[in-house]
Amino acid sequence: MKFGGTSVADTDRILHVANIIKKKIDQNHKVAVVVSAMAGVTNDLIQKSKKISDDFPNDEYDALLSSGEQVTSTLLAGALQKLGIKARSWLGWQIPIVTEGDYKNSKIISVNSKVLNESMDQGIVPIIPGFQGLSEENRITTIGRGGSDASAVAIAKCLEADFCEIYTDVEGVYTTNPAIEPKAKKIEKISYEEMLEMATLGAKVMQSYSVQKAMINDVEIYVKSTFSNNSGTHIAAEDKISYDKVITGVAYSSDDAKVTLQGVKDKPGVASAIFKPLYENNIVVDMIVQNISADNQKTDITFTIKRDDLKKTKSVMDQLKKELEYDHLLTDDKVSKVSIVGAGMITHPGVAYKMFNALSSKKINIQVISTSEIKISVLVDEKNTKEAVQVIHDAFGLDQ
Amino acid sequence: MKFGGTSVADTDRILHVANIIKKKIDQNHKVAVVVSAMAGVTNDLIQKSKKISDDFPNDEYDALLSSGEQVTSTLLAGALQKLGIKARSWLGWQIPIVTEGDYKNSKIISVNSKVLNESMDQGIVPIIPGFQGLSEENRITTIGRGGSDASAVAIAKCLEADFCEIYTDVEGVYTTNPAIEPKAKKIEKISYEEMLEMATLGAKVMQSYSVQKAMINDVEIYVKSTFSNNSGTHIAAEDKISYDKVITGVAYSSDDAKVTLQGVKDKPGVASAIFKPLYENNIVVDMIVQNISADNQKTDITFTIKRDDLKKTKSVMDQLKKELEYDHLLTDDKVSKVSIVGAGMITHPGVAYKMFNALSSKKINIQVISTSEIKISVLVDEKNTKEAVQVIHDAFGLDQ
Repeated sequence: MKFGGTSVADTDRILHVANIIKKKIDQNHKVAVVVSAMAGVTNDLIQKSKKISDDFPNDEYDALLSSGEQVTSTLLAGALQKLGIKARSWLGWQIPIVTEGDYKNSKIISVNSKVLNESMDQGIVPIIPGFQGLSEENRITTIGRGGSDASAVAIAKCLEADFCEIYTDVEGVYTTNPAIEPKAKKIEKISYEEMLEMATLGAKVMQSYSVQKAMINDVEIYVKSTFSNNSGTHIAAEDKISYDKVITGVAYSSDDAKVTLQGVKDKPGVASAIFKPLYENNIVVDMIVQNISADNQKTDITFTIKRDDLKKTKSVMDQLKKELEYDHLLTDDKVSKVSIVGAGMITHPGVAYKMFNALSSKKINIQVISTSEIKISVLVDEKNTKEAVQVIHDAFGLDQ
Repeated sequence: MKFGGTSVADTDRILHVANIIKKKIDQNHKVAVVVSAMAGVTNDLIQKSKKISDDFPNDEYDALLSSGEQVTSTLLAGALQKLGIKARSWLGWQIPIVTEGDYKNSKIISVNSKVLNESMDQGIVPIIPGFQGLSEENRITTIGRGGSDASAVAIAKCLEADFCEIYTDVEGVYTTNPAIEPKAKKIEKISYEEMLEMATLGAKVMQSYSVQKAMINDVEIYVKSTFSNNSGTHIAAEDKISYDKVITGVAYSSDDAKVTLQGVKDKPGVASAIFKPLYENNIVVDMIVQNISADNQKTDITFTIKRDDLKKTKSVMDQLKKELEYDHLLTDDKVSKVSIVGAGMITHPGVAYKMFNALSSKKINIQVISTSEIKISVLVDEKNTKEAVQVIHDAFGLDQ
């Protein structure tokens, strides 16, 4: 059972969480618990480190931030004992949760399940601070990708848990963001692959790295709300899910920017020449489209990046002007990516048509298209985002 | 160098502390640093634990509270690096600082000086969170007595440091509390024994347990202010101090209560019968006075306790009524203990007379007297405290 920052935001909520755990134990489950820092604490510690130095050392940063989850784990252990349930905090270095890689961005490579199993065998619930581990140098690390969700998945795996429950402040994963489409419905079951696409595309319930880890390790996940008794969303392997819908959800992102190189000389090595310096500058490229070259031996190349990287990208492209001999550089940071996700689309023809048709019915212009086996993404003008999501959600009957 | 909670209360002060350390290093000193939690943090954590449970488990309490000093040590390490000084945080379990005894009240039994010396030899300043250690069970402990001051003394001893500087928010130890006697003067040099008496008697600059540890281990201490460049107070062995004054300071406490048993049958075992149940109820008794028994075979016994313990003490005495056959139980929680401290008084006759005479000149009634080799304490009505301190301070010329 993993509880996020808003679920443990104050002592009342921590006592509430203790009751949720107690219910689980009363149902004869054996439980290990992973907790985040109390909401706001991590940001406050980051602010302090920034006030000290804009070049705060990474190793100290990790020891600093890990204190947040440490506090929550001890308070929750106390709260459980108040309910008559044996519990103790197991800090990352005590287990240990061994990590490798750089500070601030470590990866869990092993969890010593022995002490956790012994604890549970004695009826003592282990409360484990998420997000932290131990380096080879016997120092505290934090895991950069996935945070406490990734800790929970790694611990569920090492304990060979039947399932991993992620408690958060929403009821589960929705067909789309209820904030822009009130008719959005909670998804009962979703495959790792679909969840991965949803997460990557902007659904913020779980970080994509954690979903990926769960998929690789076959850890079944239930995302549910700390504040209700509803069933939540079950994330599992595709073969455990029966698809009664062609698509599972509509996702969107609104932090993209579009870059077009017009009139690039069409010769071997052009794509490589463009994307190598972007990679070297740590700029993540998402969609890439190249139009078929016409008889004039020139082509247009369009790609999307995160909006924050646009300035850096422009300067990289300016430096390439001479080598690539392109005619014009066009950029647009007022674009939005709208995607449909669903393992069902593989066996259903006409899904793309249905999506494009829906957009067309609202006269929404499609700028770029990109597809994978279980996803179709289109780039539209940012001002059309809400309408695009709604019309697609409707066209595929996701509100039914 | 040890810095207290107000010295590291916010990030600006932590940066200021980094500058103080830098100056020391620029003077070619080899330095190890001990820090308290940022002012307010420990109390906030205690409040959280109380909100969770009024019977919060001690082991979790220690892991909870230790996070406060952990945060300060990482921030200060970052602040020093910003000034171009190599530094790293060494948490209690990393060194380790080995403790024994109960959680919440552990004692340091050893500090692994090897890693700290290696760090300093490499020019890396170790920043050590005070107040914390490691138990035999590989769990975090806090040291109940003396807190971070005791950590600093233990580390100074293990490193065979030339001296231990305690940085705080006052200029040093004063002849009495400047808040009630503006003529109070800073003491340049004071012996461990005197400092111990002053601390026990209410001077709050250093906790008495830490002074005791420093005395036993012959660690020379300088108490000084984080916020000025003045010289502070030097605490050292008696033979290193020349006494030009008969007494060193006037201390007072205002949290005492007086209990008198009138008409106790004077027979062997009476004192034991009174003080055994007090001990068993964890009630600390301070002054004890028994009047000489008159011909009627009855005696009066008076003792003082902490005011907080008065209710408990009354109930213990009520239970003893039958056994002791005393006539009356009188209590008074409006008393104050005023003391003079000074190693010089051993060789100066008439010190007690001078003190009593000063009080008498202001018509202040002395209720109980208690003496040791370097201390004379009297109990007076609480409302006379200020006047008593001032007239004694004056009589011994402490403002000169």
